[in-house]
Amino acid sequence: MDDKLSTGRPGPTGGTRLDPWFGAYAQRAHGMRASEIRALFAVANRPEVVSLAGGMPYLDGLPLDSIADTIQRLVATRGTTVLQYGSGQGDETLREHIVDVVAMEGIDAHPDDVVVTTGSQQALDLVARIFVDPGDVVVAEAPSYVGALGVFRSYQAEVEHVPLDADGLVPEALEATLERLAREGRRVKLLYTVPNFHNPAGVTLSAERRPKILEIARRYGVLVVEDNPYGLLGFSGDPLPALRASDEEGVLYLGSFSKTFAPGYRVGWVIAPHAVREKLVLASESSILCPSNASQLAISAYMESADWRGQIKSFRELYRERRDAMTTALTEHMPDSSWNTPDGGFYVWVKLPPGLDARAMLPRAVTSRVAYVPGTAFFADGTGADHLRLSYCFPTPERIREGVRRLGSVIGDERDLADLFGTDADVDPDLRDVDNPGPDLA
Amino acid sequence: MDDKLSTGRPGPTGGTRLDPWFGAYAQRAHGMRASEIRALFAVANRPEVVSLAGGMPYLDGLPLDSIADTIQRLVATRGTTVLQYGSGQGDETLREHIVDVVAMEGIDAHPDDVVVTTGSQQALDLVARIFVDPGDVVVAEAPSYVGALGVFRSYQAEVEHVPLDADGLVPEALEATLERLAREGRRVKLLYTVPNFHNPAGVTLSAERRPKILEIARRYGVLVVEDNPYGLLGFSGDPLPALRASDEEGVLYLGSFSKTFAPGYRVGWVIAPHAVREKLVLASESSILCPSNASQLAISAYMESADWRGQIKSFRELYRERRDAMTTALTEHMPDSSWNTPDGGFYVWVKLPPGLDARAMLPRAVTSRVAYVPGTAFFADGTGADHLRLSYCFPTPERIREGVRRLGSVIGDERDLADLFGTDADVDPDLRDVDNPGPDLA
Repeated sequence: MDDKLSTGRPGPTGGTRLDPWFGAYAQRAHGMRASEIRALFAVANRPEVVSLAGGMPYLDGLPLDSIADTIQRLVATRGTTVLQYGSGQGDETLREHIVDVVAMEGIDAHPDDVVVTTGSQQALDLVARIFVDPGDVVVAEAPSYVGALGVFRSYQAEVEHVPLDADGLVPEALEATLERLAREGRRVKLLYTVPNFHNPAGVTLSAERRPKILEIARRYGVLVVEDNPYGLLGFSGDPLPALRASDEEGVLYLGSFSKTFAPGYRVGWVIAPHAVREKLVLASESSILCPSNASQLAISAYMESADWRGQIKSFRELYRERRDAMTTALTEHMPDSSWNTPDGGFYVWVKLPPGLDARAMLPRAVTSRVAYVPGTAFFADGTGADHLRLSYCFPTPERIREGVRRLGSVIGDERDLADLFGTDADVDPDLRDVDNPGPDLA
Repeated sequence: MDDKLSTGRPGPTGGTRLDPWFGAYAQRAHGMRASEIRALFAVANRPEVVSLAGGMPYLDGLPLDSIADTIQRLVATRGTTVLQYGSGQGDETLREHIVDVVAMEGIDAHPDDVVVTTGSQQALDLVARIFVDPGDVVVAEAPSYVGALGVFRSYQAEVEHVPLDADGLVPEALEATLERLAREGRRVKLLYTVPNFHNPAGVTLSAERRPKILEIARRYGVLVVEDNPYGLLGFSGDPLPALRASDEEGVLYLGSFSKTFAPGYRVGWVIAPHAVREKLVLASESSILCPSNASQLAISAYMESADWRGQIKSFRELYRERRDAMTTALTEHMPDSSWNTPDGGFYVWVKLPPGLDARAMLPRAVTSRVAYVPGTAFFADGTGADHLRLSYCFPTPERIREGVRRLGSVIGDERDLADLFGTDADVDPDLRDVDNPGPDLA
């Protein structure tokens, strides 16, 4: 039986038995597919598996009873506002609080500069929507945040990676890449960077490099997208001044309450120059009409009634303890791998011993009850199989140690296999695809 | 001074003094602009103005104290789930409740068929994102929902309007349009329709026409987008069976809690065939990672603890009383206009006496302390100036009567002026543009 048209629905160019609308999708939708690692993550969510894969914050430390009482009062006294439509740009009181938050990183913003978004993922989506035509280039670190790469791909951007090292994005490499792209006549729209406690690499752009990066971007006319969900979660000293702190016109700053308070409200923000801000608001209205008043007012009420700065401080201590648990366990159980020691945030970026493939190894790791994210997720070009990302944010220190122990054992077995049968270097390149591994990797 | 490059930022094709990134926007962003009626709506929100413009539900009737207590318990007992990331497709318990809601319109769905979205606006955005390439055709009623037209424009679709009458979309006109478009070789992707208590036209697609519309869409291979926020808010009898009730493969059904409960949570949904649903989830993850757990779990808790069916019934009675207040006042104060009498929903669609222009008249109406939406907002082609939309959902009956009285007086003055100086028929077509009037018009 012919697979085509079997439903009797022609569609603009025909359907299939499995999908009557197969021929009707937009170009951009052809690149949308679930990666096969999603099926593994479904298994990884079982309680017996130690997941070092997700980026979920640890919320048990929040004062839940007092948050519950705050919201009760909020809905009882201001319910008709909480439950109603709000403004497309976001609630003004919350925008004032956001100005206070970013002041901690040296940003002098006005509430008018702030656009509230449905998590900073929506901010990424809106920025790509208003700037990226198919074929435009977005420059990003190598590696880069998987969720941002997914957005850029969905707008049919071409991502060019620039190396980072222990001090973050390398200015000379950025300049060489922009110079080459200019020579090739390619249209570079955005430089996407996670300057603090990078996801997945864990590194922070040094204070010395920050003005250099800005100067290079300015010289090549490239807008900088500074994605900074982890900036306040540093383990030592004060936060570095944000890129946006010294460049109001050349930087779009993206922030979020997801890591410093709670992701369940889906509230993030962009700080943008005036004209760009107007376009972002229009794009957001087209996308969701307005952000949730219920979420925004709940966050404002939390900030007004709780010691949110103290809460961030206690998160820092919690995550530092887990970082220590992880790096100590890595030293003990994975002596032939290498990694950075992050000074904040959620992630350790591990380089495997030569010949191992993080993607090919994942099913065996999950069978051994430990999960991670293969490095390939963080590159637009399918490379990165020699790395994996471990997150220490959610599991307890004891679980982290157990997870790393299991992983060390998997790696040991893998090396024995490689010694016997050779490596996975010739794995089918189609299997390297890690499109859209889903919200677990936020 | 040259306006170009004055900031020293070249941008990909140069910036201006007002916007250094002017040359960097994507094609799709050039069509994004605020309509000048937004400035008027800012004035219309002043308390002395009776706004018959917005689509905000009236929330004072909700049991706010009991909702507040329900959320308090929810956060106190399940806070670490409420405040955490959720699944991209949406919370499973809420999807089960949604299945119960749509069963009231004869839909037999499974929770797996449901994708939870950030209001049904995001559902519209996701549907356009996965189906619409620039230049593709979307067929919509004349008039059609302004927020949907904005989405289609932002994906560079060409909207073709098909007339409706008192029984909704006219099957013969739909067929003639699809036949012409096929002859012209144009690629029709979607039929967008609001079958119940249409926004803005107030009419309902009759039971007799429903199978005809589905048959025509099937024959031409066009996917039907059934947008149904008002279906449960009918004033007499049971809801008609949804289009989706008799066609699982050919209809994407969009629903929302915004009108039957509360828009402040921003929770809507799509029910889609399996393969389309998978693409929608991937597109949503790229756009927002996941819908808000806080919102979704709050709605589930409300549905489990409150008499939500009784609440919808009391909303119906409230809105029927307001509909009656409006149509009675129209008969008294606007004898030379004509309108339908909607049997549910929020809107009356008014045809002005010959020679009057709803758009040109709006500033004078706002000066007279009454606001409405000009008909031009609901057409992709700039027509519709002979109509206006009045909404009766939010103001009290007394305010509705006062607003219609003021509007009748504005229309009287306008007709006197027209008699003296001629009509506004030659208004600048640029001023007809009503792109994106914002969330007030939901």
